Amino acid sequence: MKTLAAVLLLPLLAAPAASALDGKWTPSQVLDIDPAWLREQGLQRAPSALWDAERGTGLLSGAVNIGGCSGAFVSKSGLIVTNHHCLFPLLQEHSSPQRDLIRDGFLAGSPADELPGSTLRVQVPRRFTDVTADVLAAIPQDTDDRARLDAIDARIRTLVERCEQQPDRKCKVAVFDDGVTYTLIESTELRDIRLVYAPPRAIGEYGGEIDNWMWPRHTADVAIARAWAAPDGRPAAHDTANRPYSPEFFFPISQRGLAPDEFVMVLGYPGITYRSLIAEEMHERRHRFFERRADLFGEWIGHLEHAGAGDDAGRIALASNLKGIHNRYKNALGQIAGLDRGDIVARQRAQDEAVVEWAAERPEHAGAIAARAALLDVLRERERHWERDFLLNLIALGTESVPGSIPPLPKGLYYGATLAHLAREQARPDTERAAGFRDEDRPRITERFNREQHNLYLPAERRMLAALVARARALPEAQRLPSVERHFGDLDEAGVAARIDQMIAATALFDADARRLMMDEPESALRARQDPLLTFAIDWNHDLRQLRDQERDWNARTARHRPTWRRAVAAHAGRPIASDANGTLRVSFAHVQGYRPRDGVHYLPFTTLNGVIEKHTGAEPFNVPERLRTAAAAPGSRWFDQRLQSIPVNFLADGDTSGGNSGSPVVNGHGELVGVNFDRVWENVANDFGFNPAVARNVSVDIRYLLWLLDRVDGADALLSELGIERE
Amino acid sequence: MKTLAAVLLLPLLAAPAASALDGKWTPSQVLDIDPAWLREQGLQRAPSALWDAERGTGLLSGAVNIGGCSGAFVSKSGLIVTNHHCLFPLLQEHSSPQRDLIRDGFLAGSPADELPGSTLRVQVPRRFTDVTADVLAAIPQDTDDRARLDAIDARIRTLVERCEQQPDRKCKVAVFDDGVTYTLIESTELRDIRLVYAPPRAIGEYGGEIDNWMWPRHTADVAIARAWAAPDGRPAAHDTANRPYSPEFFFPISQRGLAPDEFVMVLGYPGITYRSLIAEEMHERRHRFFERRADLFGEWIGHLEHAGAGDDAGRIALASNLKGIHNRYKNALGQIAGLDRGDIVARQRAQDEAVVEWAAERPEHAGAIAARAALLDVLRERERHWERDFLLNLIALGTESVPGSIPPLPKGLYYGATLAHLAREQARPDTERAAGFRDEDRPRITERFNREQHNLYLPAERRMLAALVARARALPEAQRLPSVERHFGDLDEAGVAARIDQMIAATALFDADARRLMMDEPESALRARQDPLLTFAIDWNHDLRQLRDQERDWNARTARHRPTWRRAVAAHAGRPIASDANGTLRVSFAHVQGYRPRDGVHYLPFTTLNGVIEKHTGAEPFNVPERLRTAAAAPGSRWFDQRLQSIPVNFLADGDTSGGNSGSPVVNGHGELVGVNFDRVWENVANDFGFNPAVARNVSVDIRYLLWLLDRVDGADALLSELGIERE
Repeated sequence: MKTLAAVLLLPLLAAPAASALDGKWTPSQVLDIDPAWLREQGLQRAPSALWDAERGTGLLSGAVNIGGCSGAFVSKSGLIVTNHHCLFPLLQEHSSPQRDLIRDGFLAGSPADELPGSTLRVQVPRRFTDVTADVLAAIPQDTDDRARLDAIDARIRTLVERCEQQPDRKCKVAVFDDGVTYTLIESTELRDIRLVYAPPRAIGEYGGEIDNWMWPRHTADVAIARAWAAPDGRPAAHDTANRPYSPEFFFPISQRGLAPDEFVMVLGYPGITYRSLIAEEMHERRHRFFERRADLFGEWIGHLEHAGAGDDAGRIALASNLKGIHNRYKNALGQIAGLDRGDIVARQRAQDEAVVEWAAERPEHAGAIAARAALLDVLRERERHWERDFLLNLIALGTESVPGSIPPLPKGLYYGATLAHLAREQARPDTERAAGFRDEDRPRITERFNREQHNLYLPAERRMLAALVARARALPEAQRLPSVERHFGDLDEAGVAARIDQMIAATALFDADARRLMMDEPESALRARQDPLLTFAIDWNHDLRQLRDQERDWNARTARHRPTWRRAVAAHAGRPIASDANGTLRVSFAHVQGYRPRDGVHYLPFTTLNGVIEKHTGAEPFNVPERLRTAAAAPGSRWFDQRLQSIPVNFLADGDTSGGNSGSPVVNGHGELVGVNFDRVWENVANDFGFNPAVARNVSVDIRYLLWLLDRVDGADALLSELGIERE
Repeated sequence: MKTLAAVLLLPLLAAPAASALDGKWTPSQVLDIDPAWLREQGLQRAPSALWDAERGTGLLSGAVNIGGCSGAFVSKSGLIVTNHHCLFPLLQEHSSPQRDLIRDGFLAGSPADELPGSTLRVQVPRRFTDVTADVLAAIPQDTDDRARLDAIDARIRTLVERCEQQPDRKCKVAVFDDGVTYTLIESTELRDIRLVYAPPRAIGEYGGEIDNWMWPRHTADVAIARAWAAPDGRPAAHDTANRPYSPEFFFPISQRGLAPDEFVMVLGYPGITYRSLIAEEMHERRHRFFERRADLFGEWIGHLEHAGAGDDAGRIALASNLKGIHNRYKNALGQIAGLDRGDIVARQRAQDEAVVEWAAERPEHAGAIAARAALLDVLRERERHWERDFLLNLIALGTESVPGSIPPLPKGLYYGATLAHLAREQARPDTERAAGFRDEDRPRITERFNREQHNLYLPAERRMLAALVARARALPEAQRLPSVERHFGDLDEAGVAARIDQMIAATALFDADARRLMMDEPESALRARQDPLLTFAIDWNHDLRQLRDQERDWNARTARHRPTWRRAVAAHAGRPIASDANGTLRVSFAHVQGYRPRDGVHYLPFTTLNGVIEKHTGAEPFNVPERLRTAAAAPGSRWFDQRLQSIPVNFLADGDTSGGNSGSPVVNGHGELVGVNFDRVWENVANDFGFNPAVARNVSVDIRYLLWLLDRVDGADALLSELGIERE
C-alpha cells in the first residue's frame, strides 16, 4: 500500500506553500503516514504522538466531542476550550432577565462557582476497532436489501450493548461511506460539565449574521468549560463531591504565536459530508436540492418580511425564524456558487468515468459498474416524485432538524405532525420507538414546542401555510400529496385561503396547555378532536411516514451498492482515501494562509484587534463593550504580534473541515494549541462535496485573542495561570 | 532651496516600496527635481524629457485638456486617448434610436468616417509664465478687499486678452492657493475633434454605479478621438478639407507590460482640491457640509424612490436623477469616512499650530497669524447663516453645476431661478454678463432645460418642493429665507401642501414652448405672468443673488489673507509644496500597488479579463457582449500577462489625482503609455483634503486591455497599426 505521504505530496509539487492537503483522516489512517513527509509539512513531534492506538492516548485523545461540537482539553484539571456557540445552551440555562449571562458573559471566580449543565456531555475517545467483518458476517445469505440493512442494524446494536457493559464506556458503531467499513468507537463519557468562561455575546458573536461565513471575521467564538468526575476520577453525574477530571492528555497553550504559511492540524468531529456521492447524485444536490431551497427560501423571506412589516410585535416574533431562513438561503446560494466555482460535479463525473473504464477491464471489480448503475436507479426513482418529497421533508418532527436546520414553518403543521408522530410511536414499547420519541425525549419536545411558540405570529402562519399548500397543489398530478388533496383539493384559491383562515381560527395547536394534553393522546383521540388544522397535520404526517418507509428502502439499496462502488474507487486510486465525514474523530493537515475570493481581492490570513475596533459602530452586531475598547487602546501586551502590529483575532487555514468541527482545536507542529476553529468561509461551503484548494479555508480564533481577553479585558488571573500562562 | 527630492525621500525611508509621493506638481516644479532621485524612483529618461519650458514640449505637452477631462496624444496623426465617459457627449451627439452608438460603441472604418463633435475642444499646453508680480502690481494702494479683488480680475482679463492676440493661442491666468502665485498659461486650442473609437457602454461602463469607486473594477473606461487641423497644420473649425493634426509630442504605447511596484507618472488636469484650507475650514466641510449633504441626500433618495414606486413611467423618469443623488450620497459618506480615517482635520490642526508657533517668533511672518485669524473670521461669518446658504446653493442656475454636480431638484425652482437670472444678466451688455449667461450660452441652457424635462415627474416634483420648503421653514428665525417666508410664511403644513399643488398646477415652467418665450423676457415681464411657481423662483433667485454678492466679499477677504498664510506655511516647511489642484497641468509620481481597505483584506493592484467574465451575470451593469466573452475564451494573446495568467484590465497606483484627472495618461519610466486613469477608490475620495498614503489609490485602465479589445474584440487593425502595434 502506498503511504498517505505519496499521495499528499502530489499537490505540494504544484503549489509548494498553498498545498491542498485535503482529507479528514481517521486516527488509524494517521499512523500510516510517512514521518518524513509529516516533518516536511511542519510536524515537530513524532507521528506516534498523534495517536497511541493501544493506550488510546496522544494528541487526538485531547480532542473531545462536546454536545455535538468539538473541543480540547487544555489543562490537567479538565478545562475544555470550545466555541462560544457550542456552550450557548449552558449560558441559556443559567440566564435570566435579572442575570443575563448571554449578554454579559461569565467568568467563574473559582472552580466552586462554575455553572453545571443539565444535559451537556463530553466524550473522550479511547479506542477505535474495525468491526466490518463482524458486521457483514451477520447478514443472512440471499436476503433482500431491506432485511440486510435490518440485520446490519441489529448487529450494530448488539456490538454497542456488549461494549457498553465495560465500566464507564460509551460506545457506537460508525458507518463509513454507507458501509465500506464499520468502526466500533469507545469513549469515556463525562456527564458533569460546567461553564468556566464565556465572553459577552457582543464579543463572542461579534459581527453576527452579517459576518457569518464572510471574511474578514473578528469574532471571539470561544468559551471554556470544565469536566468534573467522581472523587475516584471516574465519570459521574453532577455532584458537589465531584472533583475536576484529569484527562490522559491535554494540549499545552502555544506561546510561540502563529505566522502565515505555518503548519497546523485541525482535530475534531466533522459532521456529514457528501464526497462519496457519484456525479449524478451531486448534480441532484446542485440542480434540484439547492436550487429549490434557494427558490423556496427566497419566497419565504418575502412572506415573513411582508407579514411582519406593519407590526413591531410581528417583526420581533419573526426575527429569529427570518434570521434562520436568511442563513439557509445564503448557504444554498453559497453551495451553488461553490459547486460551480470548483466545477465539482464535472470533476466528479470525469473521476467516476475513469473508475468505470478501469473496472470494466478488471473482472474482480465488475460488480462496481453494476453497483453504480444501481445507485443511479435509486436516484432516478427518487427523482420521480422528488418535488413532492422535498415538500414533505420540509416539516421536521419533534426535535429533529431537517437538513440544514431550517426553522419549523408553518408551525401548525410542525406541532400537529409531531403530535401525530408521537401518538404512533407511543403506541409501541419505549425501546422500539424511533429515536427522539422515547419517554426520555418528551421534555425536550415540550421545550422545543414552547420555544417555537415565541416565534409564532398568526399573519405569518397564514401566509406560510398558504404558500406551502399552493406549492403542493402546483405539483404535477402524479406527485400530489393525498393529505393536501383531501383538505384542499376541491377548492379554488379563495376557498383555500378561507379554509386556512378557518383552520387557524379553530385550532387548539397554538395553545400550550392543549398541546400538553395532546401529547398523551393516541391518534384516534387526536382525530376525534375534529380540530381541522390538527387533522390536516395528522394526514400530512401519514404521507410523511410513507415517505420515510420508502426512504428506508432506498437507503437499504444504497447501503448494499455504494460500498462495492467505493471499494473500486479506492482500488483505482491505489492509495488511501479519506472517507466522508460522519461525526467521528478526524484530523486535517493544513497551513495558515489567505485566499482570493474574487479577481483583484486577496483575503489576508489574519485579522486583528485593530479590525475589531474599526468595525465597531456601537450598533448590534458591531458593538463591543467599552472595557474591550479601553483595553485595546492600552499599550501592547505580550499577545501583540509584531508583524501584524496588533493582537491577532481570527485566522484562515486550508483545513478540511465541516459543521461538526465547531470548537475544534487547531494545533501547531509542536502539538500546542494555537487556535479554535469556528467557521468556514462562504466560498467554501460546497467543500462538503469536494475540496477546492483555491478557496478551502476554515476560520479559527487565534488563541492569543482569547488570552488577551482573559488577561486584559477580564483579568482572569487564576484561569490564565491554570492554562500555564503567568500574568505579565 | 532644498530640492523636491530631499522632501520626497523622507517618506521613502519609512516605507520603501509603498512610498507616499503625494503632490500634484506643476511643469516648472518638475524641473527642480533631483535627477538622481527620479532615477531611483524608476524614471528611465532624463528629467528634461518631462518638460522643455522654452520650446513648450516634452512628455507633459502630450497631456491635453479635452472638454474638462485629461487626454493623451498617442500618434503622430493626432490620435488622443481619454476616458469613455469623457467622450460620452460625442457619442450622444451621434446616437439615435436607429443607430445607438452609446449602446453599440463605435469604430471608424477609416479617418474619413470619424465623427466630428460640435462643441468639444482640446487644449495643448505651450507655455507657463509666472505673472504674480505683474498681477499684484496692478492693485492700488490702500484699497479695500473687494476693490483689490476687482483690480486683480481686471488685470487678469487684460493679460489674457493681450496673450490671445498671438495667433492660435488660448490663454488663461491660473490662480494658485487663492493668490500665492498667478500663472499665465498658453495653449493651442484645437476645435475639430472627432470620435475614432468607443467600446459599447456595457464594456466602457462595465459595473456602472455599483462598481463606481469600488475596487475591484473591471471597466474599459477608454475611448479614442482625433484632433484635426487646417491643411497648413493650424487649428481650425471643423471642415472637410482639414487634416489630422500633428502634435509636437505623442506618447508611444508601451509594449513592455506593467508589474506591481513599477514606477508610473499620472499627467493631466486635476480639478479643485482643498488641501490649503486651514483645519477649521476642513472641519466645516467634514462636520457641516458633508454631514448635511449625507443627511439631505438620504432624505431625497427616500422621496424619489417613494414618488416613483407605484408607477413605471415615474421610476424611469426619476432613474437618472436618483442615480445622481445616490452617487453624491455615496461620495458624502466616503468624504466623511476618509477624513476620519486619515485623521485629516486633526493633522491639519497640528500643522497649522506648528506654523503659528513658528511664525510667532519671526517678525517677517507675523502677518501670517493675523491672516489666519482673518480666515477664521470669514469662516465664523459664513457659519452664522450657514444652513440658509447651504439650502440656497442647492439650486444651480443655467448650466452651472453645484459643487459635486447634483441634479437640479426641484425642477420648477431650477427653471424659474435660471430664467430670472438670465433676465437680469440679459439686461447688461453681453461682455459684462456672468459666465454661462452670454448669448453664446443660450443654446446650452435650452439643451439643459430640455434634458431635465425628461427627468421631470410631477409627484416627485411636489415632494421635492415640499421637502425644500419644509427645510427652509425649519431654519432658525434669523436665517429664514425672505422668498420662502413671502410665499409660505403664513401657512400651516396643509396650507403649504395646498399652495405647492396650486403652484405646480398653474405653472407654465414645465412647458418647453412657454420656457422658450420666457428666455427673452425681462424680469418685469416674468413677474407680470403671475405664474405662482415662477414668482417664487424669481424671489428665490433674488435671495441667491444676495448670497452671491456676499460670497464675493468673503472671497475678496480670503484672496487677501490666504496667500499671506500660505507663504508662511511654505517657509515653515522649508521646501516646495505642491499647490492645490486648480485644473492646470500637473504630474504625480506614483507606483503600481494595491492597498488594504480594511483589516484582513488586501486589494491586489491588478484586475483581469478573468474577473470581467467572473462578474458577468447577463444583467446590467454586468453584461458584456457575447463577442467579448467569445474572445476571452480564445487562447492567450500577446497582451496575456504571465504573472496574472490573464489579460490585465485595471490597475491601482498611489497617484495623487482628483476629478479632472479623468482620462489622464499614465506613463512608465520610459515615458510610454501604460494606462489611462479613470477613477479613485472610495477610501480615497477625501484625498482632496489630504493625502493618506495607506489608501490613496487612483484607478487606471491597463493599456493592454484597450489593445486586446481593439485586436481581439473589434479587429481594429488599422487603428492598432497607427498606434504602432502590428497585429499578431
